[in-house]
Amino acid sequence: MTRQIIDTDVAIVGAGPAGLMLSHLLDRRGLTSVALDIRTRQQIETTHRAGILEDGPARMLVEQGVSDRILTDGHEHAGVELRFNGEGHRIDFSESVGASVWLYPQTDVFIDLADARRRDAGDVRFGVTDVEVFDIETDRPRVQFTDGDGIDWEIRPRIVVGSDGSRSASRFLIPEARRKQFFHEYPYAWFGILCEAPMSAPELIYANSPHGFALISQRTDSVQRMYFQCDPNEDAASWSDDRIWSQLQSCVAGADGFSLQEGPIIERTVLKFRSFVQEPMRHGRLVLAGDAAHTVPPTGAKGLNLALNDVRVLADVIERTFAKNDYDVLDEYEPMALRRVWRSQNFSYWMSQMMHRTPGDEFASKRQHGELNTITGTAQGRAYFANAYTGWAADPTV
Amino acid sequence: MTRQIIDTDVAIVGAGPAGLMLSHLLDRRGLTSVALDIRTRQQIETTHRAGILEDGPARMLVEQGVSDRILTDGHEHAGVELRFNGEGHRIDFSESVGASVWLYPQTDVFIDLADARRRDAGDVRFGVTDVEVFDIETDRPRVQFTDGDGIDWEIRPRIVVGSDGSRSASRFLIPEARRKQFFHEYPYAWFGILCEAPMSAPELIYANSPHGFALISQRTDSVQRMYFQCDPNEDAASWSDDRIWSQLQSCVAGADGFSLQEGPIIERTVLKFRSFVQEPMRHGRLVLAGDAAHTVPPTGAKGLNLALNDVRVLADVIERTFAKNDYDVLDEYEPMALRRVWRSQNFSYWMSQMMHRTPGDEFASKRQHGELNTITGTAQGRAYFANAYTGWAADPTV
Repeated sequence: MTRQIIDTDVAIVGAGPAGLMLSHLLDRRGLTSVALDIRTRQQIETTHRAGILEDGPARMLVEQGVSDRILTDGHEHAGVELRFNGEGHRIDFSESVGASVWLYPQTDVFIDLADARRRDAGDVRFGVTDVEVFDIETDRPRVQFTDGDGIDWEIRPRIVVGSDGSRSASRFLIPEARRKQFFHEYPYAWFGILCEAPMSAPELIYANSPHGFALISQRTDSVQRMYFQCDPNEDAASWSDDRIWSQLQSCVAGADGFSLQEGPIIERTVLKFRSFVQEPMRHGRLVLAGDAAHTVPPTGAKGLNLALNDVRVLADVIERTFAKNDYDVLDEYEPMALRRVWRSQNFSYWMSQMMHRTPGDEFASKRQHGELNTITGTAQGRAYFANAYTGWAADPTV
Repeated sequence: MTRQIIDTDVAIVGAGPAGLMLSHLLDRRGLTSVALDIRTRQQIETTHRAGILEDGPARMLVEQGVSDRILTDGHEHAGVELRFNGEGHRIDFSESVGASVWLYPQTDVFIDLADARRRDAGDVRFGVTDVEVFDIETDRPRVQFTDGDGIDWEIRPRIVVGSDGSRSASRFLIPEARRKQFFHEYPYAWFGILCEAPMSAPELIYANSPHGFALISQRTDSVQRMYFQCDPNEDAASWSDDRIWSQLQSCVAGADGFSLQEGPIIERTVLKFRSFVQEPMRHGRLVLAGDAAHTVPPTGAKGLNLALNDVRVLADVIERTFAKNDYDVLDEYEPMALRRVWRSQNFSYWMSQMMHRTPGDEFASKRQHGELNTITGTAQGRAYFANAYTGWAADPTV
């Protein structure tokens, strides 16, 4: 059976936000690409993920011509509340570092990118099967796949980018002898819900309480996203709505009388916590980007931001690689990307350890209050936190 | 056998820096005290401890008329070096937060305080035995002891302060049912040396290296203090000078060619790591101060500073207690002291976890570099660190 052949500059394996953003950025540089995903567009659109974009990635979506829908449908958040000892403490990002973040669901980022690729006649294939990558150690790599109509294809790119997410197959194309994997496991997870209710607060609330951590987030005026700390093996289905609301209310209760606006719970899921980085991010003609190379726990919402930063850096490096016709230029990507990856890994770890309860460890709980007191109670603490949370917007080195 | 009776305002059990500073501050308020210690003055003077005073405690020694020797014999440090990946990164305290710290050994602080108490005819008894505290739950507490000449005494104070250090007996006078103790243990300790050598650097160097943590500190122009990470059960006596220097040099080696000035090692000791807080700090007429109530690991040198802060706060509270003749005023002390205690506990813990190596945990090592990169590589990180290290000098709430 013959394969249809496609010649292109870059084959992009994985058409989530990282892959589509890269495809878009390459297009704007006059470079061609084909992006593939084994999931259908609808499957990706209905997988709810983080909803906070740092200053830089939000700006990139608008300035690079993907969409300015974030400006109308998103909510700019100029601060966040850290809640402990039953009291709220707002950190004002604008005042501290002159930056902000945007509440804008990852699914909307994906929709904007998919629409922009369609608008610009980009080559994106969803719902493909049997994706296989060959010959990345040669100067003629190939990517084979079968499309939804059963037709077999072979892409013949100059570079292959693996942006196939946290369950990446691409990362295993880097030979085991070269591969280093860095892990950290956590003793807790997040129980996440979507509910039909008005917003309980205008900005995110991260709460450290004797009942565990909770995050009060928003989605739209009538649908909200909330999370509370749970055991990694918790069975989400076994919790009644009443029990969920009772747990969430306990986590935010305080002397100020704050409470959550309740409503029907329309989705529930347990999010596992894991810190992971694989190095190297390049092998031959293969380069990894986003979750395929690194995952962070959800605290602080760095995952999508890191992925978008990876491809921002990578698009420039690929352009220079082709301009010089020197594939060693690809090696410039990893150190530039990793500086922000490890900063964000640390931030996600640090914020997690500051906010979650370790049952039985009373020293940890008191120490957390000392840390939260330093972070919220000093101008230097607020600025340190705000700078990391908004993505080190003023720092040219990351 | 009859006891000699002493009536006084405050009996101070433990005449280290915390006890003597309190005695001095009370004297300046027109209040009398008797300070006791089971150690001789010479024993205390020859026990080498931390050598960094925060801005506030350094200022207090001078402004309260203890001594201005710190200004002539001490060294003002306007910064510190954090070293990782074989590169030094200086944090400029003056530039970041307009404060500094002073290199001035704890033994000299003690000598200045003991001399000042003698100058001002303060009642301080060293080398006493059989110290016992009675009746702290009544309005007539008593402290008995035997002096060096074998004479038995009974102090009849209005308040008893337990400032008898990390091996405190006073803390156990608080009934077990009321006592809460918060602990954290660490898997490492410090191997500390004194050596006869010139200074290797003008300011402290805290190094994170693949060979473990090291701290390069100074004492005088010809005697230096250095430390390196070791196992808590390390036998200091089993290390040759050559092996010690080899370990220290490995910890600071880097591309900049930095190396230590070596010399004969005149003292060696293993410092255990432990975080500890006991609450409450008051029970009846007894109040705890300094290491008797809380100990920190040596990273960041907060121990002496916390002790001096405790008694600064306590002297005011005792004065108000007597002025109002209301012993419930003593309850104002604990929350004021604990705010700084838990901030400092967190800082010592946080700096320890950032600087020490955990063998086998490669994620931790990479994450530490991400954290150190954020701390040293951003203005906000430098200010956050500098503010904590210099003791939140600008913050009126701690």
